[in-house]
Amino acid sequence: MLSPTTLAQAFDRVTDYWSPKVIGRVNDQLLKAAKLKGELVWHAHDGQDELFYVVKGALRIEFENEAVDLVEGDFLTVPSGVRHNPVAQEECWVLLIEPASTKHTGEEVTSRTRSLKEQLS
Amino acid sequence: MLSPTTLAQAFDRVTDYWSPKVIGRVNDQLLKAAKLKGELVWHAHDGQDELFYVVKGALRIEFENEAVDLVEGDFLTVPSGVRHNPVAQEECWVLLIEPASTKHTGEEVTSRTRSLKEQLS
Repeated sequence: MLSPTTLAQAFDRVTDYWSPKVIGRVNDQLLKAAKLKGELVWHAHDGQDELFYVVKGALRIEFENEAVDLVEGDFLTVPSGVRHNPVAQEECWVLLIEPASTKHTGEEVTSRTRSLKEQLS
Repeated sequence: MLSPTTLAQAFDRVTDYWSPKVIGRVNDQLLKAAKLKGELVWHAHDGQDELFYVVKGALRIEFENEAVDLVEGDFLTVPSGVRHNPVAQEECWVLLIEPASTKHTGEEVTSRTRSLKEQLS
């Protein structure tokens, strides 16, 4: 029995900022719901692209030489290995698509770093 | 220079039913925008999952032993190898996520079958 996931309902499970929850899977990629506010940390994911889709609010993704502003309904793929830092002035809801093996904050480990185990709980 | 894609604008490029257009990429998966009306054809994608996310309208995905109804904001991953047939009573907009190597109608070839080259144009 296959059953659909309602995106808005999936966000109900997300209670903390910067703590993505796995809400779906397609092939080796995970779909994750995250609520963001403030900024994360500069990091990169070597060998792995990461897609951000803004479901609600607005998100700035800082890169070393530019910043890209996303509003509701926009998506952007951060290419593999590119250092970036997501910043949300106000609460922002994003859908992330990235490989199951992607580490939350790349090789940077901070108090905001979440393991995949935490993301599945 | 990275620039975001606006999902609604991406659908402006889709002028025909059942003719997905590639609008993004993350790792080896393509994001495609498609407008559906009527039904496609029974098919399966061996070794490849396919995710349907309903952006507008409603979609029924028929399976051999059940049917799943998706409304706006719902998504469902059709697992690898599972025969399915998408049916839209009224015009429906979907975002598809599937590997770059996925064939539009699996091994079934009909007048509605689109090549990846057509999907990129």
